Amino acid sequence: MLDRRNPSCQATMNIQHVDFGERSYPIYIGQDILDEGELLRKHIPGKTALVVTNETIAPLYLERCLNSITGDGRISAEVVLLPDGEQYKTMDVVSSIWDKALECRMDRRTTFVALGGGVIGDMTGFAAASYQRGVHFIQVPTTVMAQVDSSVGGKTGVNHPLGKNMIGAFYQPQCVLIDTTSLNSLPDRELASGISEIIKYGLIRDADLFGWLEENIEKLLNRDPEAFSHAIQRSCANKAEVVAEDEKEGGVRATLNLGHTFGHAIEAASGYGTWLHGEAVGTGILMASDMSKRLGWISEELDGRVQDLITRSKLPVVPPKGMTVDDFKSYMAVDKKVQDGTVRLILLRGDLGQCVITGDYDAQALDDTLHHFCH
Amino acid sequence: MLDRRNPSCQATMNIQHVDFGERSYPIYIGQDILDEGELLRKHIPGKTALVVTNETIAPLYLERCLNSITGDGRISAEVVLLPDGEQYKTMDVVSSIWDKALECRMDRRTTFVALGGGVIGDMTGFAAASYQRGVHFIQVPTTVMAQVDSSVGGKTGVNHPLGKNMIGAFYQPQCVLIDTTSLNSLPDRELASGISEIIKYGLIRDADLFGWLEENIEKLLNRDPEAFSHAIQRSCANKAEVVAEDEKEGGVRATLNLGHTFGHAIEAASGYGTWLHGEAVGTGILMASDMSKRLGWISEELDGRVQDLITRSKLPVVPPKGMTVDDFKSYMAVDKKVQDGTVRLILLRGDLGQCVITGDYDAQALDDTLHHFCH
Repeated sequence: MLDRRNPSCQATMNIQHVDFGERSYPIYIGQDILDEGELLRKHIPGKTALVVTNETIAPLYLERCLNSITGDGRISAEVVLLPDGEQYKTMDVVSSIWDKALECRMDRRTTFVALGGGVIGDMTGFAAASYQRGVHFIQVPTTVMAQVDSSVGGKTGVNHPLGKNMIGAFYQPQCVLIDTTSLNSLPDRELASGISEIIKYGLIRDADLFGWLEENIEKLLNRDPEAFSHAIQRSCANKAEVVAEDEKEGGVRATLNLGHTFGHAIEAASGYGTWLHGEAVGTGILMASDMSKRLGWISEELDGRVQDLITRSKLPVVPPKGMTVDDFKSYMAVDKKVQDGTVRLILLRGDLGQCVITGDYDAQALDDTLHHFCH
Repeated sequence: MLDRRNPSCQATMNIQHVDFGERSYPIYIGQDILDEGELLRKHIPGKTALVVTNETIAPLYLERCLNSITGDGRISAEVVLLPDGEQYKTMDVVSSIWDKALECRMDRRTTFVALGGGVIGDMTGFAAASYQRGVHFIQVPTTVMAQVDSSVGGKTGVNHPLGKNMIGAFYQPQCVLIDTTSLNSLPDRELASGISEIIKYGLIRDADLFGWLEENIEKLLNRDPEAFSHAIQRSCANKAEVVAEDEKEGGVRATLNLGHTFGHAIEAASGYGTWLHGEAVGTGILMASDMSKRLGWISEELDGRVQDLITRSKLPVVPPKGMTVDDFKSYMAVDKKVQDGTVRLILLRGDLGQCVITGDYDAQALDDTLHHFCH
């Protein structure tokens, strides 16, 4: 980690490094750094770039992003404007990115730039991974969710009617540029959605962060810049450490999916885009915590603290009305962490900050949790 | 390289190794080795496999392949049957592979098995690269084209209406299993198509192989098993050396595309599936050789030998009737080797077995070659 004075805006920029050997890359975090064109341009080696964004983000940030990319006249940029929402995270929409790139005759040396939230980042990353068998890409995340989680670590992909993120690639960006001022334009629901992932880091590996959240959650909800800067840096640091250790999710990386198996079932059952990803993860974390308590793996007191923090974060605390135990089981059966038929779950075990990934649990506890939440 | 007696069928099996560090894999070459289930099964770690094949290949080899995979009762196998032909090498067809895998609830530990020619291998490889962000896959090539070229080295992908192989991934298989007896069922056109790639290795890096082809081309066309075994082994050895040195085609690997820039234009202009890939490459090699001669980079005598061998191989020697110079230029402009606007070509230069990849040539020579061939 490195703090340095930024001469052009006199603001502090923080740089986190994600260590993948030759494929290592920096995460830049700071206010108004989207306007510092040099930061972006030094990661664009060719003469062309394709900015992928959506109808909501474009009016807010597209012009600034384009100005930065084309600022010194070396790079020409084209734009793909996608519809906004998780329901558009499909192969057909990714194909429209490829169509545009081919129509513009973009070659292997082009760079795709993802300007938006997690959906834009996931699709642009997969489009870049597969365009001419792989071109450079850059993440410019504009939501809390994308800034603290999805833009870091190289998971890319799209949903399939039978399951979330079922088609995709592990593909690392050239850099991640997080302009923290973009949070000011974020709707409250999106804000809370991202906070669920910050809570996740606290629960799986960073007890200090969880404690800090218990004291500062209202500051985050009120968009306090200093509080946000801290939360983003801590989250990126946690994420960077985990993914550098286990890029392809052979082991510890799977713990980042705390609450996600329950959450993905909620998203699929309610129709992608109805619940925000982080909202579903928030409820999923509650369910994982409840199940861990039933197994006797964590104390009632810790489960209570989890419930309390999720509730204070304005996240939903029960699954969608009408969603049944069988719905959960059906969708959980196609989760990517299933191995030869067994649903493995990330569960809390021990003190705050400790978790396990396991298929070795009393199935009755899972049943009890599902029945407790589904009514 | 390692030769060993195979106790079960008393035939010689040859093993070539492709060196990618942790991702290294063997190429098994031998007669009737498709029936040696242990060879396949030791590369399938999970409990499920998905065999992808087509309507032409299935009646010939599917049962033998399934018997080998399921022979010891540990692995269950499902099948996806695709239509046959380059015109079906599309994203929609790849999606049907994912649909089947998800309907069968196949998890991350499954293995995709490509049983067929280059089209099946390319699509199955890309489907495997992107299914749940990557599952194992195995190549069982049944055409000369696939055995000597496309099954080795990890290039996977599909065509786009605006260009061939524009969408895909570099993704290495767990092993390649080449049963040389499968050549007996191959149509004459397919046979000649594959031979064009063998000629290619001779021209770009293996003068001895080219000389051997000049003496033995009729044996190959008559399907002499010993001659074929030699040609496949030499081709795989050449391919393995090149791709191990340069997996992602940053340099020397591009030389494997001799004739392909012209050839891809022919395939796209005539409609995928009208010309076989190797037929288009054959004509493309002639055009590259002609242009090299016009540039003064090779002798008239060498160009004559190339023309002679391509002709004796029963490959087409002129582009499709009606294809114009402008057609060529338009399709060549979207080739993956284009860099920031310049069409780079693989051209012969020097003695037999030497070539260059370059965008630095007299454009008049390209024009002259195109006009010479287009009438």
